[in-house]
Amino acid sequence: MARIVPVNAKGTRDFLPRDLVRRNRVFGLLRDTFERYGYEPLETPAVENTQVLEGKYGEEGDRLLFRILKRGASLEAALRELLETPKLTAGDLAAASFEVVDSPSEAAPDAYETPRWTAAQAARLLSDEALRYDLTVPFARVIAAHQNEIVFPFRRYQMQPVWRADRPQRGRYREFYQCDVDCVGSRSMTVDAEMAAIHHEVFTRLGFTTFVTRINHRGLLDALMESCGVAPERRVSALTAIDKLDKIGIVGVREELAKAGIAEEAIARLAEAIGVAGEPRAVLAQLRPVLGGTEQGAMGLRELDEVFAALADMGVPSERYTFDMSLVRALSYYTGTIYETVLTDSRLGSLGGGGRYDQLIGQFLGRELPCVGISFGIERIFDALAEKHLLTDEAVTTTQALVTLFAPETVAASLALAGSLRAAGIRTEVYTEPRDLKPQLSFANKKGIPLAVIIGPDEAARDAAVLRDLRSGAQETLPQAEVAARAQALLGA
Amino acid sequence: MARIVPVNAKGTRDFLPRDLVRRNRVFGLLRDTFERYGYEPLETPAVENTQVLEGKYGEEGDRLLFRILKRGASLEAALRELLETPKLTAGDLAAASFEVVDSPSEAAPDAYETPRWTAAQAARLLSDEALRYDLTVPFARVIAAHQNEIVFPFRRYQMQPVWRADRPQRGRYREFYQCDVDCVGSRSMTVDAEMAAIHHEVFTRLGFTTFVTRINHRGLLDALMESCGVAPERRVSALTAIDKLDKIGIVGVREELAKAGIAEEAIARLAEAIGVAGEPRAVLAQLRPVLGGTEQGAMGLRELDEVFAALADMGVPSERYTFDMSLVRALSYYTGTIYETVLTDSRLGSLGGGGRYDQLIGQFLGRELPCVGISFGIERIFDALAEKHLLTDEAVTTTQALVTLFAPETVAASLALAGSLRAAGIRTEVYTEPRDLKPQLSFANKKGIPLAVIIGPDEAARDAAVLRDLRSGAQETLPQAEVAARAQALLGA
Repeated sequence: MARIVPVNAKGTRDFLPRDLVRRNRVFGLLRDTFERYGYEPLETPAVENTQVLEGKYGEEGDRLLFRILKRGASLEAALRELLETPKLTAGDLAAASFEVVDSPSEAAPDAYETPRWTAAQAARLLSDEALRYDLTVPFARVIAAHQNEIVFPFRRYQMQPVWRADRPQRGRYREFYQCDVDCVGSRSMTVDAEMAAIHHEVFTRLGFTTFVTRINHRGLLDALMESCGVAPERRVSALTAIDKLDKIGIVGVREELAKAGIAEEAIARLAEAIGVAGEPRAVLAQLRPVLGGTEQGAMGLRELDEVFAALADMGVPSERYTFDMSLVRALSYYTGTIYETVLTDSRLGSLGGGGRYDQLIGQFLGRELPCVGISFGIERIFDALAEKHLLTDEAVTTTQALVTLFAPETVAASLALAGSLRAAGIRTEVYTEPRDLKPQLSFANKKGIPLAVIIGPDEAARDAAVLRDLRSGAQETLPQAEVAARAQALLGA
Repeated sequence: MARIVPVNAKGTRDFLPRDLVRRNRVFGLLRDTFERYGYEPLETPAVENTQVLEGKYGEEGDRLLFRILKRGASLEAALRELLETPKLTAGDLAAASFEVVDSPSEAAPDAYETPRWTAAQAARLLSDEALRYDLTVPFARVIAAHQNEIVFPFRRYQMQPVWRADRPQRGRYREFYQCDVDCVGSRSMTVDAEMAAIHHEVFTRLGFTTFVTRINHRGLLDALMESCGVAPERRVSALTAIDKLDKIGIVGVREELAKAGIAEEAIARLAEAIGVAGEPRAVLAQLRPVLGGTEQGAMGLRELDEVFAALADMGVPSERYTFDMSLVRALSYYTGTIYETVLTDSRLGSLGGGGRYDQLIGQFLGRELPCVGISFGIERIFDALAEKHLLTDEAVTTTQALVTLFAPETVAASLALAGSLRAAGIRTEVYTEPRDLKPQLSFANKKGIPLAVIIGPDEAARDAAVLRDLRSGAQETLPQAEVAARAQALLGA
């Protein structure tokens, strides 16, 4: 038989039941938490028109898009344009080459001044759609497209795969899930506090005990730069240095600030500000004289004060969040509060984060619409669950009982009993055909099915069945009518 | 503000919460049923290497694949090959054209005998991966790739989107969900019966009361052709005619058979065989003299007899399935039993179907592996649910309670009460900021949230709250500590 090599696409994964049972348990817990906070599900197509995605993620992002090749007449037209435009001679053509704008290419011959098509241009010409790169841009598109159907303020969550043509490496895939929680249409700080509260609830329910949500405000960072006299052109470097505080310590940060050309006096003031520690609202009060002078700073102090007040009202334990003046969050679209949750005793880094972004949706909507959102780093959360041994002792299959088939004459009784187990809500597999019991029980063990039911001729003759708990090895003979209730009791225990 | 037109890709849909709540309810019911029968979840990547998909769905399928454009150096190489291969002169190039193999193109000039690249060839050269076209081929790949990790017999279900570059039309999309249930590694007819039993349970739980699962066997159809003396080259036309029995009636089928060049005597015998009706096992016995003579026919009769016996053992009501000699199922890979479920009082057509296919997986595995599977036509099932008014009176949001915010001084009490509702498992949204009650209640009504909680200054002063049932308009004032229990009672009612 001719054989096709069964290789999955680079950087992608198949999820077998054993993996998926585990993943779905975590996904289910996330969904349940989001919905408990009144967030509703939303899903967008995997494919977007390229003009929706291009230019939203920088040059790097444009290059990492998985582009869909045009089809039919539009592919034909694109190919014709591709071939006709250069109008080179045959000799030219044989030597023609493509310059990839963003990566060095050895192939560009000196003989040609200007190649007519760069690979990036050709890619744009040949494709009309691309795979979703994140969940935020499609969400912004949805808000604009469906603004008349959506009731604002709109709370939604979204858990879907995204695709990036990154170089695959350990723990980094080309297809991976993102998970976003956003509220659109309100500037109220109770919503910002909700973001930290949701992080708290999710990580607590997952079993983590050493996490903390760091909270800061972009307005305070701007005010800090201003008040310390950091020149505008040095602010990105200064913020990048400050962001490394938890990795390189205050000495390291001071060195980096010096390297970035920040004056000694400014470094001292920056170090002082990011070094203030203590109860969040007390720290904010302490920073008021330094940062409260600018409009941005005053707003940041007021908003964070409201966030911390609301977190206390919501009953989030105070050891689960902190005000952290060194938190920066690189994404340029944040405009207000920012968040990041880390395990304090792990090097895994951020398990999730987010912030307020009041301008992004405007690109599609044509007017500003306030937003605040967080995301969860699903793949890294799985790494963290493994590191903290929080995935042990769990079921590895959805199936709860295997009904064995002893012999052709007992099949009818076994099928009927399986039906009664299912009617009782027990997820029940029937072995496919009668054979020796041993391989059937070994099958159940290999799959991790906890219970097995056996009806041999003796049991069949007196409407009985053997119920075996494969976890303990204990078994008992029961009337068939009682098996479902007993199995429920064993599974509930 | 510059505005990007927020249009979704052609033939795709955004699922807003209102749609998704409904869809997820149906998806959840399907999952729950499959798992009750011991089927485990499996997921594969959206993207597959093109060599996995090409040639599996016929020429039509190859043309409808969404292909992913190559990236980086491999795109550069493909573009160079595309331009260099023709080695035409500049004049030639200006007039060069692409012939799309499968659709007429006006652009192909007579001046060129053989265009160097057809659009189809160029598409193959420029792409290395494509979007999943169905769930069966990736499943076959998974079986081959993970054969040493999988415990056989392997029951799995899969519910994921697939993509086809079809012309979009009413009820037909370019991105749509498929839902497959398969068992690999057994030839036992108890598994085949399970397929019909799962159809029965799913459609019953969805609320349908007029469905029937038609069952037949490819071996019987082969034996029928043989015994009626239909020449091999006429069998496809004959089967196509027979398959139309429920649409055009026996008179219409006889006409089509005659048109297909089938002899009068053969038509009479075919009509007699497909006209036999009654209790399935009795009909099978009646057909034994006609169809039992060939190996295929004898096997078909024996296997179907076992299927119908197992269906009775499993307690599937006899009005829910039928032996139907006119069921054909066009897919060429079926080798044994075949299934199709329809509503007897609707023109919507098949809501799902499937059969036994013992050879498909071999293309990846290099050896035969028996399989039987069914799929559910998700999108058409939604149409049928709408037609039968089975989607009414249902919640349109996941959220169960809105906690209003009366004034800044009551926010703390409202946030705390929301926490107690959530702790009781009630999905609770807090309005974003204090404002008049009327717009807050109108917000809840627009979203379809059933309960609202109000804490004004009077209530706050005596630890009370107003709980309003927005469905009935009834409201009561309760101690805050009792609101969660009362809300649970109202939601359970």
